[in-house]
Amino acid sequence: MNTLKERSLALHKKLKGKVEVKNKMEVTSLDDLSLLYSPGVAEPCLEIKADISKVYDYTWKGNTVAVVSNGTAVLGLGDIGPEAGLPVMEGKSMLFKAFSNVNAVPIMLDTKDSDEIIKAVKLMAPTFGGINLEDIKAPECVYIEQELKKQLNIPVFHDDQHGTAIVVMAGLFNAFKLLNKDLKDAKVVVSGTGAAGSSIIRMLHAYGVKNIMATNSTGVVNPKNSSEYNFVVQELCNYLMPTKDEKTLSDALVDADVFIGVSMANIVSQDDVKSMNKDAVVFALANPNPEIPYDDAIAAGARIAGTGRSDYPNQVNNVLAFPGIFQGALQVRATEINEAMKLAAAEGIASMIDDKDITETNILPNALNKDVSNIVAASVARKAIETGVAQEV
Amino acid sequence: MNTLKERSLALHKKLKGKVEVKNKMEVTSLDDLSLLYSPGVAEPCLEIKADISKVYDYTWKGNTVAVVSNGTAVLGLGDIGPEAGLPVMEGKSMLFKAFSNVNAVPIMLDTKDSDEIIKAVKLMAPTFGGINLEDIKAPECVYIEQELKKQLNIPVFHDDQHGTAIVVMAGLFNAFKLLNKDLKDAKVVVSGTGAAGSSIIRMLHAYGVKNIMATNSTGVVNPKNSSEYNFVVQELCNYLMPTKDEKTLSDALVDADVFIGVSMANIVSQDDVKSMNKDAVVFALANPNPEIPYDDAIAAGARIAGTGRSDYPNQVNNVLAFPGIFQGALQVRATEINEAMKLAAAEGIASMIDDKDITETNILPNALNKDVSNIVAASVARKAIETGVAQEV
Repeated sequence: MNTLKERSLALHKKLKGKVEVKNKMEVTSLDDLSLLYSPGVAEPCLEIKADISKVYDYTWKGNTVAVVSNGTAVLGLGDIGPEAGLPVMEGKSMLFKAFSNVNAVPIMLDTKDSDEIIKAVKLMAPTFGGINLEDIKAPECVYIEQELKKQLNIPVFHDDQHGTAIVVMAGLFNAFKLLNKDLKDAKVVVSGTGAAGSSIIRMLHAYGVKNIMATNSTGVVNPKNSSEYNFVVQELCNYLMPTKDEKTLSDALVDADVFIGVSMANIVSQDDVKSMNKDAVVFALANPNPEIPYDDAIAAGARIAGTGRSDYPNQVNNVLAFPGIFQGALQVRATEINEAMKLAAAEGIASMIDDKDITETNILPNALNKDVSNIVAASVARKAIETGVAQEV
Repeated sequence: MNTLKERSLALHKKLKGKVEVKNKMEVTSLDDLSLLYSPGVAEPCLEIKADISKVYDYTWKGNTVAVVSNGTAVLGLGDIGPEAGLPVMEGKSMLFKAFSNVNAVPIMLDTKDSDEIIKAVKLMAPTFGGINLEDIKAPECVYIEQELKKQLNIPVFHDDQHGTAIVVMAGLFNAFKLLNKDLKDAKVVVSGTGAAGSSIIRMLHAYGVKNIMATNSTGVVNPKNSSEYNFVVQELCNYLMPTKDEKTLSDALVDADVFIGVSMANIVSQDDVKSMNKDAVVFALANPNPEIPYDDAIAAGARIAGTGRSDYPNQVNNVLAFPGIFQGALQVRATEINEAMKLAAAEGIASMIDDKDITETNILPNALNKDVSNIVAASVARKAIETGVAQEV
């Protein structure tokens, strides 16, 4: 039996590219050439020139996104550069196609300069119906996304920030249904204030959770000292509870209802879990090794636990979110993906589990369930129309 | 019977994109996910990080080009902008796939600033094995290509310049075999000094043709006055015959052996053709209406004529060149497409017609002949190795 490493290398070498560009019809006759290329192709060109919105009628734009990365924060590998990041972006493109039939084109950019990334994406935007930013280092990724959202009229979405956050919210919705408690009243501790952590805190706040505490490499984030932090954490300080004497993650977890870890392996002990409130929810999402192993969290008294891993219950996997989100946004030609649409996506994911089927080990649909994207897409598209960033097409 | 316009619009609307991104294998199991995405995908990433050339082994880079345009010189439509140019670039991508199995990704750039185009292409270059520039206005296109060739170590090729030039050279090679004359001794008049015209003149010179005259909107280009022209024509002046009293295209054509038109409709008269030497070769390539209609050229005494049209003999069609050129360059990971490789491509195209089969109406293979690209690719790859810009892979 070959190892995963050997099998993955052999498969990648055989495929030489996990995605390819394919023609949607064959080109075999002069008539084909004259319809699809010169001279017939001039006709859709002229239609689009007269009304630029018709680019959605006559080209791939309306069903195609760019998966843009510079390879500075790839999986758990860190800054490996644009070439070395390409296998991941090809994989992401595969998931887009497999789960939502959206065309996704990997685009690796050879720069660490945020403004160069913004400029390059802006220049290529006419080609695409949306931009999925991926594996770009924090806090730059936050700035890049914010600027592109301002400057472009197509959806821009940094999956490392919001994909995880949306699936976490979906899990929390179902967990709190099972607990028969109101998430808004819960004390939630988030470990990590980078890409995913910042988006999780923003979504919790947007949903109405008041008692949020955050920790990072500096310990518990104290909103009174906001000027000491980078611009991302400074914004988060607006959504965080004032601290008392809490300094460490262990301090913060005392009497918490929810722990969400998007940080690093093995930083939560069983004693930490024991110090949490009854019916604690522990999402330990560091990959591949969580902040506390699933079994340890449960053994220490957590009522519900989830990880990023597929070999334990309640896998928090981005693939539940991003295919359907773009599918829905593209369907209605949304000009952006706003906070309401992200919450709608979380609600769509949560709705995949009927209330009667929710259990401690069944709060999220399986990552391979290809029905999820259609449900998420419908939910996102509806909310885009409701919030005025799209029209019925 | 519907018109071409109606049929083209209906077909484009039905397809909503002539190309799509497809997965090279299905994603159905957790094992698939772990091999193609997290965690298995980390393995090829680490291999590439350790040796960047392995990006060719584990990703689509080695068989994928970007078709980059800003839509400033699209077909005969002129400056129609990036969105309106997208149907053409999708069509180009189709031709790449249909004729050489190379993946081609349309990338429309929203800028008319040459340096912004150069920068954007340079940033995205890690993703692609080659760059096909397309439908960018002259003379900017020449500068953009020259700079990118200097700055990138992957092939950069502006098809509007060199594609036409290569097929013209192929046609001339076979025409002069039939005439049993040496092309190097011919007097050649080129009408047009833009993208295609400048590359034709450069190739004629590189091949050894000494007696070249060029005309453009200013009349016959006089190399003595080179400072009056833009930087592209200034370079061409080094390759042109000194003029005597020739002022107009009609003046230039007296005693010419070859006319090559890449300019505009109906600027050559039958009297002009009559003033040329015996056994004149007339390539009137303005599209859709040539400098002189095929039948008129023949009736006026041209021995061999060619146009850009598929409904007359000797169609000069770029599709004979660019798929095989990139196929060959990619096969051997050539770092550029040099002049010798372009001539090799022309020789490859010409070789598709056996000497015994060459006739006045059969100097070029049919545009739909899908064997051409393999022959051109082999010829280009061999020359890339000979000239030291590639290695046997």
